[in-house]
Amino acid sequence: MKNNMEINREAVLHIPLSNYAFAESETRLTIRIRTQKDNVTACTLYYGDRACTATPVVFKEIMMEIKARDEFFDYFEAAFETPFPRVCYYFKLQNEGEWTYYYSERFTKELAVIYFEGEIMDGRSEYYQYPYILKNEIPDVPAWFKKAVVYNIFPDSFACGKYISPQHPKDVVLDNGKVCKSRLGGTLKGIFENLDYIQGLGFNCIYLNPIFAGGEYHKYDTIDYYHIDPCFGTNEDFKHLVEEIHKREMKIIIDGVFNHCSWEFFAFVDVMEKGKDSKYKNWFYELKLPVRRPQSENEKPDYACFAYERKMPKLNTSNEEVQEYFANVGAYWIREYKADGWRLDVANEIDRNFWRRFRGAVKRQNKEAILIGEVWENAESWLRGDIFDSTMNYEFRRICRDHIIGDHKNALTAAKQLEQMRLRYPTNLVNGQMNLLDSHDVPRFLSLCRGDQRKWKLACILLMLFPGVPSLFYGDEQAICGIKENEYRNPMVWGENPQLCEFVQNMIEIRKKYIEESATYEVLWKDTTQQVFTFVREGRKGRLFVSLNIAETGQKWNREERKIILASSDEEFLEAMGYKIYL
Amino acid sequence: MKNNMEINREAVLHIPLSNYAFAESETRLTIRIRTQKDNVTACTLYYGDRACTATPVVFKEIMMEIKARDEFFDYFEAAFETPFPRVCYYFKLQNEGEWTYYYSERFTKELAVIYFEGEIMDGRSEYYQYPYILKNEIPDVPAWFKKAVVYNIFPDSFACGKYISPQHPKDVVLDNGKVCKSRLGGTLKGIFENLDYIQGLGFNCIYLNPIFAGGEYHKYDTIDYYHIDPCFGTNEDFKHLVEEIHKREMKIIIDGVFNHCSWEFFAFVDVMEKGKDSKYKNWFYELKLPVRRPQSENEKPDYACFAYERKMPKLNTSNEEVQEYFANVGAYWIREYKADGWRLDVANEIDRNFWRRFRGAVKRQNKEAILIGEVWENAESWLRGDIFDSTMNYEFRRICRDHIIGDHKNALTAAKQLEQMRLRYPTNLVNGQMNLLDSHDVPRFLSLCRGDQRKWKLACILLMLFPGVPSLFYGDEQAICGIKENEYRNPMVWGENPQLCEFVQNMIEIRKKYIEESATYEVLWKDTTQQVFTFVREGRKGRLFVSLNIAETGQKWNREERKIILASSDEEFLEAMGYKIYL
Repeated sequence: MKNNMEINREAVLHIPLSNYAFAESETRLTIRIRTQKDNVTACTLYYGDRACTATPVVFKEIMMEIKARDEFFDYFEAAFETPFPRVCYYFKLQNEGEWTYYYSERFTKELAVIYFEGEIMDGRSEYYQYPYILKNEIPDVPAWFKKAVVYNIFPDSFACGKYISPQHPKDVVLDNGKVCKSRLGGTLKGIFENLDYIQGLGFNCIYLNPIFAGGEYHKYDTIDYYHIDPCFGTNEDFKHLVEEIHKREMKIIIDGVFNHCSWEFFAFVDVMEKGKDSKYKNWFYELKLPVRRPQSENEKPDYACFAYERKMPKLNTSNEEVQEYFANVGAYWIREYKADGWRLDVANEIDRNFWRRFRGAVKRQNKEAILIGEVWENAESWLRGDIFDSTMNYEFRRICRDHIIGDHKNALTAAKQLEQMRLRYPTNLVNGQMNLLDSHDVPRFLSLCRGDQRKWKLACILLMLFPGVPSLFYGDEQAICGIKENEYRNPMVWGENPQLCEFVQNMIEIRKKYIEESATYEVLWKDTTQQVFTFVREGRKGRLFVSLNIAETGQKWNREERKIILASSDEEFLEAMGYKIYL
Repeated sequence: MKNNMEINREAVLHIPLSNYAFAESETRLTIRIRTQKDNVTACTLYYGDRACTATPVVFKEIMMEIKARDEFFDYFEAAFETPFPRVCYYFKLQNEGEWTYYYSERFTKELAVIYFEGEIMDGRSEYYQYPYILKNEIPDVPAWFKKAVVYNIFPDSFACGKYISPQHPKDVVLDNGKVCKSRLGGTLKGIFENLDYIQGLGFNCIYLNPIFAGGEYHKYDTIDYYHIDPCFGTNEDFKHLVEEIHKREMKIIIDGVFNHCSWEFFAFVDVMEKGKDSKYKNWFYELKLPVRRPQSENEKPDYACFAYERKMPKLNTSNEEVQEYFANVGAYWIREYKADGWRLDVANEIDRNFWRRFRGAVKRQNKEAILIGEVWENAESWLRGDIFDSTMNYEFRRICRDHIIGDHKNALTAAKQLEQMRLRYPTNLVNGQMNLLDSHDVPRFLSLCRGDQRKWKLACILLMLFPGVPSLFYGDEQAICGIKENEYRNPMVWGENPQLCEFVQNMIEIRKKYIEESATYEVLWKDTTQQVFTFVREGRKGRLFVSLNIAETGQKWNREERKIILASSDEEFLEAMGYKIYL
């Protein structure tokens, strides 16, 4: 492609204190700038000490490199050691036709140095600023989590002994008459008894969907935040489970549902009973007194709900008493039961100050505890260090669905969209994103592949080898299918698919063996076409090449190339699995 | 200009949960999207209920309007009442050549509705999301501040009786031998005795540079956060001053310097004396024990400093004890002395958790207290509701300097850069920005005008009539000049410039009479040229037209036009002041 003669100014983007400018350590900064694809041929970063005693400020220069491309843009990047914690910086953009400086969102040929009647007046504040690299504000994720390979269990569906039992599960009636429902009868003991299986596959972290006492089988309507649901077992059972998991050097993450509760939650019951005399009357969002339980789904509740579900009143998470109550819940399970972190439900509808307090309470118990928000969209506004460490990355799934296995398969588009995704947070955070193909909230990916395991494997390879933390939903390795909610939460299938299990196991092994947290990721554009997506990851353990052939029919691979070849036909695929890995 | 046939995709920008998508009340959202200038002819916003019980989601549509332009872009905007608090949305962009939807940073002709074997699968999470309009998270500024007209006093320079005294000021030696320096001898009593003057000019809010005991005359090196500097007076003097200010229905803002302290601050002295046995050894940033006072400026301190000033050690604002100490300071002056808010020094080098705690402590005393950060650059990352309400807007000054009065005067460029500035935060916050021409940290604006008061008046008109809160540095109304620090902090001049004072008084009167907080602001592009910048503000009190002629030579204005005519020659200017205001 030819360069334009003019720099396309409309395409240029730099946002200070964002994924375009972040610290990776106390002395290391990464600065990015976006330009139109194939428009800017050279970009120089000039950085200086904001507190420089000389005027004008003395600047150093670095040539930036194009580190990513997508459909419309090139992304120039410089990662450098800075000798001072207070940095001001500007860019020089060049192409064959012209050059310009860029700072303060302005294009200019002048620097911010003002001469006035022979005096130099200081304009350094007009450059872009990284005000101070404070060690406590460097965006990062607990180190262990970046090495995690997560197995996500929906407790009701998983196991109630060595396997899930065919006997009809039993609801449990609590002392106070409240009913906790069961659907398939899974229990914590069932999980305990199958840890060999999970660990045998290579997983080193378990994420459990909700386990506290709740009305429905899914337990997203919590009745009691301090007790394990009686259908699942007891607090003791949970303690034993955690102890065993830790004994195996694995970790466990539990699910916190704090946006709403069950209408059987004690505080809501109290408000129902006592009305304006209830201590908890301000605990619920937009609750209007006098309040009563709507008798049917058609009756509009006098309080806000999760969606429009009258049985799940929305908590007033801006209320400081509510914040304190749940911060205590957050700390309790970390402190008393040694859970290793929380996945947090409907995280984006909750007051940010609630989360800040929750975070403080949890991290005081264990600063290595992980906090993962359920935010499906770009979660930048929750990943600034004050709220979550990680989020569930549904965008990863979407790209796989649309461009790796969907009707509009296109490896090139997938590669570009993955680049966009990879750049949307600071690198440390991208390496801690919880990538997924399936969860309790979406159709099984294998079903979207129309049962074609070859396609599912392609997506699984990407899941395991792409930057971020892979999370696999229980039974994916056993080829469980399901489009509707009841189906994709179907009972765990045990031992029916040893080949797929072995595949997952192999992939996890490859991940653990060759990919370390700091491994770089780079698309090999010359080896990426509409059919084939090729990337390389490089770290201290060497270079790992991955080519995904998403074409329906297998392409013959040149086995002499230094690549791990994962082709589209099962035959080649298995060959590739047969240690055709080149480093 | 002609429309291109293609939509310029590189120019399109929308950022969720930002100045491109914000709530103005529990039921009102503003959504913006940026497109290339003159490229998109129609933009439609589609918004729906994220929790809609129907699948696919039912959407409503609104035609967006171009509400702002700058050099490269048009900004489409829709402000609308939403019947639901959870909103998902997407855009349709059109021009004469083509159309496209835009969501998830993708251009597509397909909506996020997935049909799979006859079933509709829900893709609503793939649109842009405004997850929940929580009432506690609506960005805003205390209402009184948006009506404030601020007079900024540098206490040492202002007055020590009815006026500033010619007698030599005296340093004060504290009981413990520490010296508090004075330069010009200003006092709090001096301010007290001149409140008639300040209020007479129309100001209803006073912002004082630091007043706590400090070593240097500027008091940015605080020794004691609980006592008024003895050169300025006593805590009692301050109490009386605040009482009198409140009696006059005015407000007072004080200056908090918490990034660093004086090396005479008790905690630093303790560390010097006791070393590793000091309770305060973790109170200072990057302090290495054993520590000692550098004897000269050339000696590198064993601790971080404000800039490289050894006498101002940098506090470790990530330390929770430090956070608590200063949160208590923050609350103390609000609670005990009824100060109305804080201006916060070097705000961008301090841990954000420090500020969150500080904010909580202050707002618990008085939720109407204002918090203004010293952040010269784009302060978006401090204006998300958890840190500050407002910042000192030096960008306003820069645009005036460069394009209203500078060597490169250009009214059109100024108008465009002001638009860029006006859009960088949610509207409520823009209306609470503290705009300024001068402060204790920059050369007097009148000096940059080379003493030409006509030019200064143009900038002052803009200061008073542009969205935001005007702040005038003491003595600007008396034509005080000064390029260097000592000069621009020169002693207040009393009564030498009644005409300029009257001008300021008139402008404040016009502001108070015609401009209310919610008044719209619109550039009249047809009446804006390189010489003349015209804008209109409209509220319940009617429409106010303002034309600023920045040309050196006066242009004859058509007096029949419905405008306030503020021309460049003094003669016309004064005529214009003579109530040639048309509504």
